[in-house]
Amino acid sequence: MASTFGHNVKISIFGQSHSAAIGVVIDGLPAGIALDEEKLQKFLDRRAPGKSRYSTARKEADRPEFLSGLVDGVTCGAPLAAVIRNTNTRSADYDNIRDIPRPGHADYTAHVKYNGFEDVSGGGHFSGRLTAPLCVAGGIILQILEKKGITISASILEIGGSRRDPFGKIEEARQAGDSVGGIIECIADGLPSGIGEPMFDGLENRIAQAVFAIPAVKGIEFGRGFEAARLRGSENNDPFYYDGTRVRTRTNNHGGILGGISSGMPVVLRVAIKPTPSIARSQESIRYSRKEDAVLEVRGRHDPCIVPRAVPCVEAACAIAIYDLMIEGER
Amino acid sequence: MASTFGHNVKISIFGQSHSAAIGVVIDGLPAGIALDEEKLQKFLDRRAPGKSRYSTARKEADRPEFLSGLVDGVTCGAPLAAVIRNTNTRSADYDNIRDIPRPGHADYTAHVKYNGFEDVSGGGHFSGRLTAPLCVAGGIILQILEKKGITISASILEIGGSRRDPFGKIEEARQAGDSVGGIIECIADGLPSGIGEPMFDGLENRIAQAVFAIPAVKGIEFGRGFEAARLRGSENNDPFYYDGTRVRTRTNNHGGILGGISSGMPVVLRVAIKPTPSIARSQESIRYSRKEDAVLEVRGRHDPCIVPRAVPCVEAACAIAIYDLMIEGER
Amino acid sequence: MASTFGHNVKISIFGQSHSAAIGVVIDGLPAGIALDEEKLQKFLDRRAPGKSRYSTARKEADRPEFLSGLVDGVTCGAPLAAVIRNTNTRSADYDNIRDIPRPGHADYTAHVKYNGFEDVSGGGHFSGRLTAPLCVAGGIILQILEKKGITISASILEIGGSRRDPFGKIEEARQAGDSVGGIIECIADGLPSGIGEPMFDGLENRIAQAVFAIPAVKGIEFGRGFEAARLRGSENNDPFYYDGTRVRTRTNNHGGILGGISSGMPVVLRVAIKPTPSIARSQESIRYSRKEDAVLEVRGRHDPCIVPRAVPCVEAACAIAIYDLMIEGER
Amino acid sequence: MASTFGHNVKISIFGQSHSAAIGVVIDGLPAGIALDEEKLQKFLDRRAPGKSRYSTARKEADRPEFLSGLVDGVTCGAPLAAVIRNTNTRSADYDNIRDIPRPGHADYTAHVKYNGFEDVSGGGHFSGRLTAPLCVAGGIILQILEKKGITISASILEIGGSRRDPFGKIEEARQAGDSVGGIIECIADGLPSGIGEPMFDGLENRIAQAVFAIPAVKGIEFGRGFEAARLRGSENNDPFYYDGTRVRTRTNNHGGILGGISSGMPVVLRVAIKPTPSIARSQESIRYSRKEDAVLEVRGRHDPCIVPRAVPCVEAACAIAIYDLMIEGER
Repeated sequence: MASTFGHNVKISIFGQSHSAAIGVVIDGLPAGIALDEEKLQKFLDRRAPGKSRYSTARKEADRPEFLSGLVDGVTCGAPLAAVIRNTNTRSADYDNIRDIPRPGHADYTAHVKYNGFEDVSGGGHFSGRLTAPLCVAGGIILQILEKKGITISASILEIGGSRRDPFGKIEEARQAGDSVGGIIECIADGLPSGIGEPMFDGLENRIAQAVFAIPAVKGIEFGRGFEAARLRGSENNDPFYYDGTRVRTRTNNHGGILGGISSGMPVVLRVAIKPTPSIARSQESIRYSRKEDAVLEVRGRHDPCIVPRAVPCVEAACAIAIYDLMIEGER
Repeated sequence: MASTFGHNVKISIFGQSHSAAIGVVIDGLPAGIALDEEKLQKFLDRRAPGKSRYSTARKEADRPEFLSGLVDGVTCGAPLAAVIRNTNTRSADYDNIRDIPRPGHADYTAHVKYNGFEDVSGGGHFSGRLTAPLCVAGGIILQILEKKGITISASILEIGGSRRDPFGKIEEARQAGDSVGGIIECIADGLPSGIGEPMFDGLENRIAQAVFAIPAVKGIEFGRGFEAARLRGSENNDPFYYDGTRVRTRTNNHGGILGGISSGMPVVLRVAIKPTPSIARSQESIRYSRKEDAVLEVRGRHDPCIVPRAVPCVEAACAIAIYDLMIEGER
Repeated sequence: MASTFGHNVKISIFGQSHSAAIGVVIDGLPAGIALDEEKLQKFLDRRAPGKSRYSTARKEADRPEFLSGLVDGVTCGAPLAAVIRNTNTRSADYDNIRDIPRPGHADYTAHVKYNGFEDVSGGGHFSGRLTAPLCVAGGIILQILEKKGITISASILEIGGSRRDPFGKIEEARQAGDSVGGIIECIADGLPSGIGEPMFDGLENRIAQAVFAIPAVKGIEFGRGFEAARLRGSENNDPFYYDGTRVRTRTNNHGGILGGISSGMPVVLRVAIKPTPSIARSQESIRYSRKEDAVLEVRGRHDPCIVPRAVPCVEAACAIAIYDLMIEGER
Repeated sequence: MASTFGHNVKISIFGQSHSAAIGVVIDGLPAGIALDEEKLQKFLDRRAPGKSRYSTARKEADRPEFLSGLVDGVTCGAPLAAVIRNTNTRSADYDNIRDIPRPGHADYTAHVKYNGFEDVSGGGHFSGRLTAPLCVAGGIILQILEKKGITISASILEIGGSRRDPFGKIEEARQAGDSVGGIIECIADGLPSGIGEPMFDGLENRIAQAVFAIPAVKGIEFGRGFEAARLRGSENNDPFYYDGTRVRTRTNNHGGILGGISSGMPVVLRVAIKPTPSIARSQESIRYSRKEDAVLEVRGRHDPCIVPRAVPCVEAACAIAIYDLMIEGER
């Protein structure tokens, strides 16, 4: 496992879907930041389950307890630790997957990697539930960025292939006992130019590294992305001009990043989310104990589409990566 | 700058397009590996310029000199250092871009980040030339992987939007004084299951981090990637089955990676390369010294399409990321 | 702050003396390790306060709660998180040091570094209390090492300058309202040869880095250490010989480490612990608010000597550093 | 191997005693620093061999060639690479140690670690010669620190146990075909308060990690160090006072570091250097090929004492560690 991220603000995420708690330690936050807990809770609520019939029925407050790092709600320079208790777990739901891995999930690869000692309940550390501490860290950092005039905002671009009626696609999938994926677009606005440490710690490198921590992400592109591969240089290059004394580009095909470094234009990226692998239909799989093929019926509570809940997670992952590089750039 | 990569095999790349030399230090290679220098040279030749009318006219041997880390051609455990001299440089070609940044290049962002002290000649450290030491490191690691039965092979999927006639598209662009981009597909075959360290050092996280070090990459996707966002779960999930005693999946939409960990199926990824920003046409830009808009004519030698030369670079970046994680997984 | 350590087994320590809890996240433990909680508790009890009149009167169970990383007491590959609640805190004791830093403590340097936002109560994150989570991590790793035949054992070499009657020296200091320091010797036995990654991650480099995390440590030496500086080469060199098929040295002036790498002989090191800075006597200091000199009377509960409690901490720090390098060496 | 150091300014050292060259890559230097090459050369000359009869007869210019990272002698933000050619090597001198490891050297431990593929000539990567690139990096950083008003200055405290006549001790040892070690003291003056990232990246942790990269270092202590272990708290605590508006301490037993963070007082440390293991006398050792004990006569050129040449190395190591933490503290 390497559930740690960051050179300057170091984040260490822990927990399994059905362990006593999940949480995060954030080491390196500046001292003197007043944390707005209510605002953070609202951010966390955006990824919380149980809000509509399109998301899983499991209902938990996902209210973090802050164990350290704050004095009267203000960061003190010491590592900040936050935990969320897992109260509403039904491990019995997962008994069958101990022997039969779920297609599309990490059950099989975790089984190989951890020699059968992996925590299978609810997907263990691979569960989407682990995006809650990611959002705790991201939500705190988003507050810091906001004070610097930087906003990071993600939204659903399409679901199930549709830009017009994404929620209709979710409902269709739900009724079919199936699931759908989608594409999320994220824009970071207000980022100063000069942020990013190429060749390997450029903005694209590090945002990509962070975003792929969200389960179900299978692709990322910046600016025009894959479409740029079909343009000519004369179409894709963004002309520079002076807007007063500020340098801007007339178009933003580069998505705010040139050579891994921010240009001052909005950072734009899109993330592909695969359809939730947990579906109500029976699926082909294997049974380890008999070394033979098997049929799996997945029980438990699952979303027909996790894209809406992934939106704040993308914001959180981008915030974490961008802020870590901003600190490096500020020196 | 952070031109270093790897936790176990640490790579440090240095050089500018027109500095005395470019090179790489690789710290952490196992001792006792016999390096096949001829094979490495053939690999490097695949990214070398000057091979056809579709690539820049600058001709250099790109023959690395090994300064350390080898005894009689065999690794000795000490850091391996290789340098390639820059012999054929014409810095005068770049005089005008000291004051007028090239659209689509890192000239402007480097100017901001390095306060005007950046090396502008040939794009400095941001030049595609820096992929030569990346390929030295990658080429060495590819030899190690091959001995373990792992092959990493990339190829052109499309150029200028065409899968049928990619080189026709390059020729069209060349005649128009313009450029084209494309998409490269890369397949890593033979990788055992269990490689990858989620959440932040999974295969996707780290391959993405490495691949974005190649200038002009604007997107990456694994398995079905962005297309998966339009599939249903029942279509995208890959059924497991036993092929004798080996576990395989009937389809490979997951691209050999589940939960950031290799499944034993081929790792498949695609990379979007934007069109070369250097084009023969005049472009809108700015002049720093007068803080006013300006028109830029780019001189110098440039490819109408760098996609063919980027193919071995994608292999090198993948090799570096995968091998670093393999060592971690071998413990 | 950088309360994180380790490249392979990553440890992240959090908490302040008087925060809700202190704790540690350990990322990278192998799966399948059965944790002996009772044995761990016994190890933790060795550093716990309140055991005798020579240590502070504060009494706490220091019983860690494991939030994640274990399934039925066995590691599952996911990060292990353990917390210890702070129940018996009396922050009011520290009111005066908000304005008057204690000589010999980190109060002043933390004040400068964290701009007055530092948590002063009980020394905050700089408190010796933070060695409890260090010992949780170290105690777990010591169990893993023991299964590999490696034991790490520290003991008091001298206190207050006396090797004969260390506890008499503590009693003398206590009666004088003063404090004493001492020297701890630590021996790691059973370590195979070949462990350590020079130049910067050799055994000495990394053990030293870990050991200086224990507050009050002011020096470290390996083998003959400072005494070796007074020997001739012919006296200090340790002759090799074959003990059957095993290579050993006739003496162990090198302390089991040559060139940063273990030789197979016992690793021997000594650590200098300064006298506890908290003393009952009045001391000269400054008052920030008036920018003038001041006299400080330290209240609160303090040990006249922390050397006995530091013994398991030295074992823990050594265990953490050695195990991290062992994993690297096992590849 | 892990011959890399630094989180912010990353240093990667390469080379063996008898490889084509030795050198260093420094990634993360700020852009716009004018390098004084003459001053750097003078610094390097302080560790160069062949200056007196007390040091080895091998004479090399040790003049670094700068391959990258500079434009007209000014840093450009790209990684700086410097190499020093190895011209005066006599590998034949080391033929016997291929089979018979030298006591006190890393020959045996390297042999185990690198499975017999290690470069034995001249000690390979473990040679004191590798302190030349350390001094290149350190010398450059010392120039940067000096511009910030920080000086780092080391000196010989004692050799062969004598503070009065250290060079007499060297001469005695030389005549006896033996060697002596010594103690070096290093003082960093002008460092602002607030530098250091506890618990694991405090000044003591990181300076110790860097200093142990110098071969032959066996101990380090800060402030009063081991002597502090024999003092009472009332003697060892340094009273604070206002010197005008500046906070100082009346004594400096803490050696400028409290809680791992600089106090603004001079940072003081001492380093124990063991006697050079290469001596003219015959020594007991083993012969790998026959698995039997053997007698070794070391040929080659060696110093009876490397302490004088180690002085600038200690300055370099301290500079590297301190500057890396200063950048972190400047944010």
